[in-house]
Amino acid sequence: MPEIRVKPKQGENGTELELIEDEGVRAWAPDADLQIVGQPHPRLEGREKVTGRARYASDVRLPGQLYARVLRSPYPHARIVSVDIGKAEQAPGVRAVIHAGNVPRIPWYEEGVLFESTVRFVGDEIAAVAAESEEQAEDALRLIEVEYEPLPFVSTIEEALAPDAPWVHDDGNIAGEPKTYERGDPDAGLRDADVTIDAAYSTASALHNAFESHGCTTFWDGDSLTLWDSTQAIFVIREQVAEKLGLPEHRVRVVKHHMGGGFGAKQIAWKHDVIASLLSRQAGRPVQLMLDREAENLAAGNRNPTRQRVRLGARRDGTLTAIVADIHQASGAYRTGGEASNVSGTYQTLYNCPNVRTEQVAVYTNTGPAVAFRAPGHVEAAFALEQAMDELARTLEMDPVKLRRQNYSEVDQLEGKPFTLPEGLRLSYDRVADAFGWGAEKPPPSSESKRRGVGFAAHDWSGGTGHPPGYAWIELNADGTADVITGTQDIGTGTRTGLAQVAAEELGLPLDCIAFRLGDTATGPYSPVSSGSATQATIGPAVRAAAAEVKAQLLEVASSVLEVGADRLSVRAGRILVDGDEERSIAVSAVTEKIRPHTLQGRGARGPNPEDKTIRTFGAQCVELEVDIETGEIDRLRIAAAHDCGRIVNPTLVDSQVVGGITQGVGFALTEERTVDPRLGLVLNANLEEYHVPTVADAPAIEHARVGVPDSEANSTGAKGIGEPPLIPTAPAIANAVYDAIGIRFREGPLSRARVVAALAEQRAQGEGSRP
Amino acid sequence: MPEIRVKPKQGENGTELELIEDEGVRAWAPDADLQIVGQPHPRLEGREKVTGRARYASDVRLPGQLYARVLRSPYPHARIVSVDIGKAEQAPGVRAVIHAGNVPRIPWYEEGVLFESTVRFVGDEIAAVAAESEEQAEDALRLIEVEYEPLPFVSTIEEALAPDAPWVHDDGNIAGEPKTYERGDPDAGLRDADVTIDAAYSTASALHNAFESHGCTTFWDGDSLTLWDSTQAIFVIREQVAEKLGLPEHRVRVVKHHMGGGFGAKQIAWKHDVIASLLSRQAGRPVQLMLDREAENLAAGNRNPTRQRVRLGARRDGTLTAIVADIHQASGAYRTGGEASNVSGTYQTLYNCPNVRTEQVAVYTNTGPAVAFRAPGHVEAAFALEQAMDELARTLEMDPVKLRRQNYSEVDQLEGKPFTLPEGLRLSYDRVADAFGWGAEKPPPSSESKRRGVGFAAHDWSGGTGHPPGYAWIELNADGTADVITGTQDIGTGTRTGLAQVAAEELGLPLDCIAFRLGDTATGPYSPVSSGSATQATIGPAVRAAAAEVKAQLLEVASSVLEVGADRLSVRAGRILVDGDEERSIAVSAVTEKIRPHTLQGRGARGPNPEDKTIRTFGAQCVELEVDIETGEIDRLRIAAAHDCGRIVNPTLVDSQVVGGITQGVGFALTEERTVDPRLGLVLNANLEEYHVPTVADAPAIEHARVGVPDSEANSTGAKGIGEPPLIPTAPAIANAVYDAIGIRFREGPLSRARVVAALAEQRAQGEGSRP
Repeated sequence: MPEIRVKPKQGENGTELELIEDEGVRAWAPDADLQIVGQPHPRLEGREKVTGRARYASDVRLPGQLYARVLRSPYPHARIVSVDIGKAEQAPGVRAVIHAGNVPRIPWYEEGVLFESTVRFVGDEIAAVAAESEEQAEDALRLIEVEYEPLPFVSTIEEALAPDAPWVHDDGNIAGEPKTYERGDPDAGLRDADVTIDAAYSTASALHNAFESHGCTTFWDGDSLTLWDSTQAIFVIREQVAEKLGLPEHRVRVVKHHMGGGFGAKQIAWKHDVIASLLSRQAGRPVQLMLDREAENLAAGNRNPTRQRVRLGARRDGTLTAIVADIHQASGAYRTGGEASNVSGTYQTLYNCPNVRTEQVAVYTNTGPAVAFRAPGHVEAAFALEQAMDELARTLEMDPVKLRRQNYSEVDQLEGKPFTLPEGLRLSYDRVADAFGWGAEKPPPSSESKRRGVGFAAHDWSGGTGHPPGYAWIELNADGTADVITGTQDIGTGTRTGLAQVAAEELGLPLDCIAFRLGDTATGPYSPVSSGSATQATIGPAVRAAAAEVKAQLLEVASSVLEVGADRLSVRAGRILVDGDEERSIAVSAVTEKIRPHTLQGRGARGPNPEDKTIRTFGAQCVELEVDIETGEIDRLRIAAAHDCGRIVNPTLVDSQVVGGITQGVGFALTEERTVDPRLGLVLNANLEEYHVPTVADAPAIEHARVGVPDSEANSTGAKGIGEPPLIPTAPAIANAVYDAIGIRFREGPLSRARVVAALAEQRAQGEGSRP
Repeated sequence: MPEIRVKPKQGENGTELELIEDEGVRAWAPDADLQIVGQPHPRLEGREKVTGRARYASDVRLPGQLYARVLRSPYPHARIVSVDIGKAEQAPGVRAVIHAGNVPRIPWYEEGVLFESTVRFVGDEIAAVAAESEEQAEDALRLIEVEYEPLPFVSTIEEALAPDAPWVHDDGNIAGEPKTYERGDPDAGLRDADVTIDAAYSTASALHNAFESHGCTTFWDGDSLTLWDSTQAIFVIREQVAEKLGLPEHRVRVVKHHMGGGFGAKQIAWKHDVIASLLSRQAGRPVQLMLDREAENLAAGNRNPTRQRVRLGARRDGTLTAIVADIHQASGAYRTGGEASNVSGTYQTLYNCPNVRTEQVAVYTNTGPAVAFRAPGHVEAAFALEQAMDELARTLEMDPVKLRRQNYSEVDQLEGKPFTLPEGLRLSYDRVADAFGWGAEKPPPSSESKRRGVGFAAHDWSGGTGHPPGYAWIELNADGTADVITGTQDIGTGTRTGLAQVAAEELGLPLDCIAFRLGDTATGPYSPVSSGSATQATIGPAVRAAAAEVKAQLLEVASSVLEVGADRLSVRAGRILVDGDEERSIAVSAVTEKIRPHTLQGRGARGPNPEDKTIRTFGAQCVELEVDIETGEIDRLRIAAAHDCGRIVNPTLVDSQVVGGITQGVGFALTEERTVDPRLGLVLNANLEEYHVPTVADAPAIEHARVGVPDSEANSTGAKGIGEPPLIPTAPAIANAVYDAIGIRFREGPLSRARVVAALAEQRAQGEGSRP
């Protein structure tokens, strides 16, 4: 068992406690001779998924199960005068109807409740029905009579900040305290600069649209509740639902075995979780409440739109003298707790700069609540900063990669600590430039109306580090196979497989001897939310520590069987090896069968991160593309990517995150933008017909130039996260390449066909040429 | 973590290894001031069960689930000439048909296979069908064309042992090696005795008939199999099914959350487990295969009938000089591994006697295979020995309780070790005699045709001891509630509740802060079969050890919070108490919330049993009843019982085992008897209409005189098992009471109405009076 230490620390409420569990496992050496970690392997559950047998939230079928639907506000802002559920309750198949009038006032968001008396966005929850079928529930919704008193509303940051703007909440439209940061003397830095950039950028609200939509199935047994939920965080859901319903945590069980993505929108309990639970309790039956695409896109989170004014100062040689960012972000109608994406961070840490100021102000709008979306804040910041850096490079007539090397930081400037792998970003620059052929002559465009351009962008990412607490249990069975049990979740990234590889490596067993269990709060030990690209780096070391404990026991038993000191024994590929005496090696199962029915068990905890260094993930991408100056089409994208994610546990899984992230980045760059009708406050494209997520046909040619240098100071596996980073630099690199191609700077994202066509028209009108 | 030691031991195959895990937890003192252990508490899952929400094996519903039925032999012995499944395969709804011709030869029982070419009992498996409904499966069975060549058969022990008997198997009708035991000089002991008894007894085959019948639902995901099974032994099923199907153990998951009893018949994998798995694999769909009552009673085990010749020698003062038992038991058609009930043991250990010989011979018969049935062997032996002791007492004209006290043993005479609680049986004698009013004047019969009698019987039971390995994991959540996770099963006895009480006690938490998880091989650590009344005594100490580990961590954290040495802290009723400073006590949750999201975790292993002592459970019962000499009816039963089960963790649960065991004992004594037609080999009462299990109307008045002395040397909780013992002495005590009432000794069980009527008629015919 890990050694436990309690340490006082200064927290927000005075002295708090920190629990430190030292796993006692040394990091694998960077050049360690690993057999399974580092090898490609398809997902363990791949066959289940592609054959349709994997069960997702919507596949749960329980005896007597009902289906629920939610009545949502058609107004962006309105007072609810009355709700009459009388007719709905009498409708065929209806078994429960709930609304503000017949459920407790369950606190929600900051000052609010589950069913508000004032609705604040189109999609806000008013009532819900559970019926024998989805259709009957849907039909019954139409029988609920609601009287509204429409109120004036704001849809955008600009509207919200206008002097006479209607207020979303009673205390105005500023959501929480502005976040400010300053180091050095930024004004002096700007004043003394040889060159300055001052530009305003904006990013749109993107909609998560994970393959699997949000939803859950709930079942009460007495005072105990089980939720099969589509969630990135079974333990967070357990805690939050327990709190909302006044239940102790051990009476709430949250289960999630397979998941079709979350992208950050599934890390909190949404109202539908509690609505389903209440309906289920009222009806005395299991209730399934899946959100359709529209409901999900309206009410279950989206990326917050931003406005960012960026000022850079630099000397002639490119050395930055100041970075100043004034950031506004829209939080939507409510603060979910996950809405305040850290846009400022990238400005503070990506480049070496003594003088930095950031101010980040969140504003309410009468739109759906914002929530974290894959690399929240960083994606938005990179779109601005990395274009500003490109503008600076062009002003300086300097290679943009060279400009970035000129401002390289090996230190976390927020805390003054060195990075655990300070060369991570430099290696990314080297590898991506090399793989892409950065600086090589561009081939001619593919047709006369096309213009070819290349662009570059870098990123850092404060996630991916992993952190305690996180636990794993392992049972080595009598036949030499092992069950690894955790409370983490595989949100579609391949967590199961990557973590099973760590277990197999440490145990010295073939991968197919490992069964990996996750996704059930009732049986797995605590694991944090699968977000921040942290899962592999959080749970990997816990799994390794548990495996190490089991291995030590195994070798002790083997030592008795072989009559050799345990210090001369090791395990590899399912065999116990005797140092210096190969003939005497025997199968692991030959040892474990000797003590059947005993099994060997271990527990592992994620140890603390280093105190004197900062763990960070970095990366960079190069983009080549063509812009058709007649049609505005952007195509023939070629993207090279290099990302420092420490040790690559499974190249297949890492590649798939890179491909997925970049593809999503292409969407963010070119097509994905929630459109709100300014007169009605309606979201016009809360669906997959009109909101354009890239398809396979839209995917660029991607080359992943793996970095793969183990970050041995980060944790005992040397692996960091890769889930979010690949998305971050794609959009600015594309925008920079578009500028390179046609000389137009798109400071407002996405670079939609409409915007490109309009800009080209304006360019032509101004009589300027196609190249600057 | 428990300390682990590997110790060589002499096993059947030379030197084997023993794993010894020392839990390092001292036993609770006998007079320990416990808060929760020792208190009555209804079953935690009681509400689930009585409201019909608890899901049993037959309640599993999976998408696409099929239903299976098995074609069984109508002959007690026949060669299968041919099986034609052609028509069945074409029948409506049929999705898979299997038989010997299209599945691998999976070894079964000793030399056999899954589908035999020679069937050996009525009910032997020949083929199976999976279809969209149970009815379609049933219909399709009739379309399977089987050509049989009937063979001669034997139904009883006598027939099987006849010189010209047909052979059930090629090597004759003796099933395995006879088991012989001898100490001292039994022949001399008989020769030199002042008084001898020589009598032959027989017991019938009883059918288990647990509330929930046998069955399972199976589901394949690729090479991984999940079985929801009605089983007492999820890990045994995992091991056996894995072996039969050639799977590694981590690819087989066995789940059993609620269970309606097993009584010993559900501790091995039966053919239906593998048949369902094969059908499921062939159909590519989940398959549910529940046995109906008839199938279960034919093919899923029964209590083996016995013939026992008992000889006792004693001196005038009642001191036994010899015990000799010649035992035959019928194993049915196959040796399941659980069929060889230890009938001999009771003769060897219940009474102090220097000269003992037992011989136990098992014989094959063409009937369903025998398997352990609640207190296997002991129930049969007690029927004979405890009547023989009564005969001896009457011959000596000695009080039967006094006779037993005269032959009291404080030592395990097999191993020469003292019992851990040597006064256990004496306490039982004292308490039951006192509660019953043994020796008091009998009240007059309730009517003229009735005769009143009283009877006494004692028992020992080699189970109930508990033993390693057995494990538990505990996670103390941040809100101060706890999840206890084990791989044991609650077969209907209340295991969940009793074990949760141990966890709550050690953690110092209220019982409702405990969630107890069990019954899933994928997520719970190894636990042995729930049999031998061993579960509380095996898993209880493991749970306690895990809780102790968690508590130590909790006190360490609390020590930081309270700034008091951990040695001054304790936990009680959910609060951390400071020794000598009551004011400073705080809630457990106030401590755990300080380290949220950390949780505190512990693992516990069942430590070894003592090496120098023997753990044993004992008990005794007194019966009062009336026999109607005109109708033969036996009624107005009043039974008092006292059983040494060590510390009583939950009086409600222990009482319920006593009531259930005695009621089943009344069935064994009076009505339960499998009837086989001697001409056809058919079981005539393989159902609940003609096989008479006692109902509530048949239940006697029961007084449980609790013993409840903690057996602190047995294990750290002081608790032993109570599941089986109460059944053991009931039937002989009833038979002794009947003798007392009407002077007729029934050496053949059960004392059915037909036997009593016939005996009364014979008694009358012999012109004897109603009292001897």
